[in-house]
Amino acid sequence: MTTATQTHDLTALAISCTLKPSPQASSTDLMAQQVLDQLGEHGVAGSTVRAVDLDIRPGVETDMGDGDEWPTLRRLVREADIVVLATPIWLGHLSSVAQRVLERLDAELSETDDEGRPSMFGKVAVVAVVGNEDGAHAVSAAAFQALSDIGFTVPAQGATYWVGEAMQGTDYRDLEETPEPVAGTNGMVARNAAHLARLLTASPYPAG
Amino acid sequence: MTTATQTHDLTALAISCTLKPSPQASSTDLMAQQVLDQLGEHGVAGSTVRAVDLDIRPGVETDMGDGDEWPTLRRLVREADIVVLATPIWLGHLSSVAQRVLERLDAELSETDDEGRPSMFGKVAVVAVVGNEDGAHAVSAAAFQALSDIGFTVPAQGATYWVGEAMQGTDYRDLEETPEPVAGTNGMVARNAAHLARLLTASPYPAG
Amino acid sequence: MTTATQTHDLTALAISCTLKPSPQASSTDLMAQQVLDQLGEHGVAGSTVRAVDLDIRPGVETDMGDGDEWPTLRRLVREADIVVLATPIWLGHLSSVAQRVLERLDAELSETDDEGRPSMFGKVAVVAVVGNEDGAHAVSAAAFQALSDIGFTVPAQGATYWVGEAMQGTDYRDLEETPEPVAGTNGMVARNAAHLARLLTASPYPAG
Amino acid sequence: MTTATQTHDLTALAISCTLKPSPQASSTDLMAQQVLDQLGEHGVAGSTVRAVDLDIRPGVETDMGDGDEWPTLRRLVREADIVVLATPIWLGHLSSVAQRVLERLDAELSETDDEGRPSMFGKVAVVAVVGNEDGAHAVSAAAFQALSDIGFTVPAQGATYWVGEAMQGTDYRDLEETPEPVAGTNGMVARNAAHLARLLTASPYPAG
Repeated sequence: MTTATQTHDLTALAISCTLKPSPQASSTDLMAQQVLDQLGEHGVAGSTVRAVDLDIRPGVETDMGDGDEWPTLRRLVREADIVVLATPIWLGHLSSVAQRVLERLDAELSETDDEGRPSMFGKVAVVAVVGNEDGAHAVSAAAFQALSDIGFTVPAQGATYWVGEAMQGTDYRDLEETPEPVAGTNGMVARNAAHLARLLTASPYPAG
Repeated sequence: MTTATQTHDLTALAISCTLKPSPQASSTDLMAQQVLDQLGEHGVAGSTVRAVDLDIRPGVETDMGDGDEWPTLRRLVREADIVVLATPIWLGHLSSVAQRVLERLDAELSETDDEGRPSMFGKVAVVAVVGNEDGAHAVSAAAFQALSDIGFTVPAQGATYWVGEAMQGTDYRDLEETPEPVAGTNGMVARNAAHLARLLTASPYPAG
Repeated sequence: MTTATQTHDLTALAISCTLKPSPQASSTDLMAQQVLDQLGEHGVAGSTVRAVDLDIRPGVETDMGDGDEWPTLRRLVREADIVVLATPIWLGHLSSVAQRVLERLDAELSETDDEGRPSMFGKVAVVAVVGNEDGAHAVSAAAFQALSDIGFTVPAQGATYWVGEAMQGTDYRDLEETPEPVAGTNGMVARNAAHLARLLTASPYPAG
Repeated sequence: MTTATQTHDLTALAISCTLKPSPQASSTDLMAQQVLDQLGEHGVAGSTVRAVDLDIRPGVETDMGDGDEWPTLRRLVREADIVVLATPIWLGHLSSVAQRVLERLDAELSETDDEGRPSMFGKVAVVAVVGNEDGAHAVSAAAFQALSDIGFTVPAQGATYWVGEAMQGTDYRDLEETPEPVAGTNGMVARNAAHLARLLTASPYPAG
């Protein structure tokens, strides 16, 4: 359990990929914060960025120039040990903002260290998904595949999510309380991510 | 509304891809039957086959020999104007039984008429998906893509589905009543499928 | 076959979802144009919009205000009988620009006619996908599901695509010539889309 | 590099999900073996099972009774530190045999140790995919999501694959030699999987 004197030896960055600019209320932000809170219980200091608040240009370079604000977010990603990709579901898919973030992370494959390892090797990624109804598994699938391709490691049960019953319209942030299975999953995702990130920080993947 | 004297000028085959052999109760069968009932309102005579009751061999030929019972189901597919692919969700995916059916239908691409059109051209496909929680959009996506590839036409809003809230365990067949939006969607899917099948029966796709 | 005097009774809009702003060369634009050329052979007048050239704001309303240029593209979509969703593959997914277009089209579900039919009912959608390697089926799946949900009808074999061998880097626009199976598929997709759009224009889906 | 005296402190099980029963030649088996060979370089002793050779019954229990041969494969999975899920692509999806394996592994979620951890926690999974053309990313996505849900950990760049150019028909096993990028990926997948499995064997995920 966390105490006032707990050392935070790891950092997590939650990238909230809601379509809504600040300061609008966002269920995605709420879920991201809940995961960060749980990570805090395991020695991980966390912060959230709402990607839509930045002008992230289309493209697949590390810097698209001309006012592109991806470099700001990129720096935060590179400093984090754990990335929480938090996204709403639209049309059954991860949001256009989340896909934009993944496209920009694609450039990291070419950013290798002296021994040829891509820059994201050693970082852990988990996924947090919210929607009115259905789609969380499809979003997790797309996200896990992209994040693994980019070089992140995905822990056991690396996704948390909430969606309502089919064809209904309640938002996560309007629930009276967090459903118990979701709270339990948030805790497990955080526990597993922190454990795995600590292992990979101490013992990085070997070079080829 | 249907009456005793209504002419059924089209036929529909629902392929239930539940993992449960007859006579076990199946939510997938229930949903398939509900869609067939709605198709009955639009002049379509329907029947259901539970694919797991047949010994459908792995492979991608029209007949894998040696006791393969796909040819029985294949004959019914070829006679139908509309196919209702009804499947449960397991691990967020369409069932192994549904994938087996799609694999066997793959052979139809090579079964062309005198003018080179694959044997499924002109048939309409819709999808009916049930699960405890989440996954219906992912299953629809995989199914629509495979069915379109094979040569089926997919109507506007060609899927109906039910899943419960995230991480819960109720079965569709244990609901006290069919949720109103699901019933409405069942009706629309059937109405659109019947309309489209009638158009394509009267005016087949031209040859190349 | 087309002749100088052929009547174009239908219109198609290709939405190119490349990440590259004009006037950069785009393989996605090339594939879109090839499909439009084939549609021209079947009485369909076509035009292309490169979505990234417009400032399409994040959101799910028909107009997000404040300089949002989606309404311009929306008007063109509403006028078209056939929509060609053309997208590159990034990280195995449809582009962030394509997902943005789908998110904005989601609002059309609530835009119903006097008889309750969503505004896209009666329109046909096909998909054109290009990438260096792999991902076309995943993109088609995601696109077909979203487009069918929104109300489009998907013809038999409603996707064309090109990708190279696994893990290679050639662009479609740098091929010396269009591979014969791709050219053949372009033709079939166009032929089927034109046929289906003509049927649905003459005989719209009935109201509920 | 491996030597005759190298200790193998870990074990890997490759589950080949080809549709072809032994002794038919299988590209999936070939890719699985290539990954196992690479794992052998990193102290991992490997073996392959062709799932279609067993009578794995439909269902989601650990033993479906009545001749079900899943328990044989299940025992091998439980003994392995690393699972290589090797599958062909059919219709753009993982094979019906692979989905059957995933469905049966779903039961492991309820098989927990004294501290409540599912039986697959601590095991590493990687994916090997082969097809004539396209679909590897979609298969990886579906596999990663299911495997993570079940409790496996997915290493950085946890998938290897080969597919040919769009709409062509060469098989992987008929290539004159393994393409260099595929061989390199096989090596990296193995290196990362072995490293991660060694870490998780020494330091298991904590209980909740």
